[in-house]
Amino acid sequence: MFIIGELINGMYKGVAKAIAAKDRAFIEKLAQDQVAAGADALDLNVGPGSRDQAHDLVWLVETVQAVTPVVLCLDSTKPQAIEAGLKVCKNPSLINSTSADDEKMAVYFPMAKQYRSGLIALTMDKNGVPQDKDRRLELAAYILEAASRHSFCVRDLYLDPILMPINVAQNQLFAILEVIKDFKLLASPAPKTVVGLSNISQGSQDRSLVNRTFCVMAQAYGLEAAILDPLDKDLMEALIAGEVILDKAIYCDSFVAAYKKSKRSS
Amino acid sequence: MFIIGELINGMYKGVAKAIAAKDRAFIEKLAQDQVAAGADALDLNVGPGSRDQAHDLVWLVETVQAVTPVVLCLDSTKPQAIEAGLKVCKNPSLINSTSADDEKMAVYFPMAKQYRSGLIALTMDKNGVPQDKDRRLELAAYILEAASRHSFCVRDLYLDPILMPINVAQNQLFAILEVIKDFKLLASPAPKTVVGLSNISQGSQDRSLVNRTFCVMAQAYGLEAAILDPLDKDLMEALIAGEVILDKAIYCDSFVAAYKKSKRSS
Repeated sequence: MFIIGELINGMYKGVAKAIAAKDRAFIEKLAQDQVAAGADALDLNVGPGSRDQAHDLVWLVETVQAVTPVVLCLDSTKPQAIEAGLKVCKNPSLINSTSADDEKMAVYFPMAKQYRSGLIALTMDKNGVPQDKDRRLELAAYILEAASRHSFCVRDLYLDPILMPINVAQNQLFAILEVIKDFKLLASPAPKTVVGLSNISQGSQDRSLVNRTFCVMAQAYGLEAAILDPLDKDLMEALIAGEVILDKAIYCDSFVAAYKKSKRSS
Repeated sequence: MFIIGELINGMYKGVAKAIAAKDRAFIEKLAQDQVAAGADALDLNVGPGSRDQAHDLVWLVETVQAVTPVVLCLDSTKPQAIEAGLKVCKNPSLINSTSADDEKMAVYFPMAKQYRSGLIALTMDKNGVPQDKDRRLELAAYILEAASRHSFCVRDLYLDPILMPINVAQNQLFAILEVIKDFKLLASPAPKTVVGLSNISQGSQDRSLVNRTFCVMAQAYGLEAAILDPLDKDLMEALIAGEVILDKAIYCDSFVAAYKKSKRSS
């Protein structure tokens, strides 16, 4: 699975403080720790407290790419901030995210093409987050149609069904597993799928248990990528075991150690 | 999920010794510990060292049902031993197991009906364990046809796709997940499904990690029952989280404790 580390996010106090103080060492360590733990990409979000999102995101991109070559996932609600980040980004990149709204897609599809970036698309629109499977599929189809219109390569598109918290929408979680599989039937080649994993346990106890149990289920339904905490060792080991069970990594007796080693050397 | 505790099995040295010595206290404790940990049923297998399987299985049934009312899963390759056990069994019962061979089904379907027992049916025959999904489905259909011929209620039938060890048949595991879902399409009402979970990690390291990761995936594919070690706390907690994610148990903040409590009082 393609692991996008979630920890460089200004909604966490320590990160917000480091961004405000331009504390490079703090951000560098958070980047390196996540990559060492198995992250293939790092989400960069300046958070709600930033007074100049474009400026702060540029600083995050420059700080992080100085210490690691992994994919950078530029996460902001402001297109200007994302474009400013993409302009200085030398690593491969992902835009996080567009919705299914026409005016957003009209901005982000051309931007992603221009900067050769992947694009995460949330299956939601102005009317909010869908409450059922059919509406998620309808929005996914709408996004794929827009991708086609913009000649955007579907292999670079990550559809996000929007994972709901278990304490709010418990009865939607199985439907979300099913749409992860169904999204792939909407286009050929199939789009990729991604979830923001920690959403599922917002406000819950036993967060790690809920996160890893759902993630392994989603993996079995074909999920390719997740934005998550790579420092959660139990979660990462569950996902490694999942890769081996699904025959995406070769079994050997010490498969957890072998998988980690193969990631480090790639 | 319907949990069948696997620990009363003569292939474990301590159990074989207790059976040989007719050590009731040892077996009682193993039964009570598994039920306290969440087992809904207990597998009883006298093991390969037993000189008189029928006699030993009768003793196991009588010993265990004296201390717990849960379902007893009579596990033997000898029909005479299973029938002797069923004759004295006052708890609800399950026969473990028939294969898809005509001569076995001709014995076990009538026996299960006569003693009002459930029946586990392995999707294998004299030719051995299937190496692919289609052959498993073919044998499942053959078993269901026999169930119909014997007027055996499909709701009491547990189809077992035969879980292979990850170090032997890694490339079959995803197909096994898929057949768990597909088996349900073969009849209406749908048959139940079961796996012998520990098979997957025979001869492997990280057994608990492999077991619980696969079991949670299978749960998401609709698995109803598993023969497993209920004393594996990480496994049981993963399955409880799975039940909640799949909306089969109500979420509350202390859902692990609540689920355990509800099992004890049922």
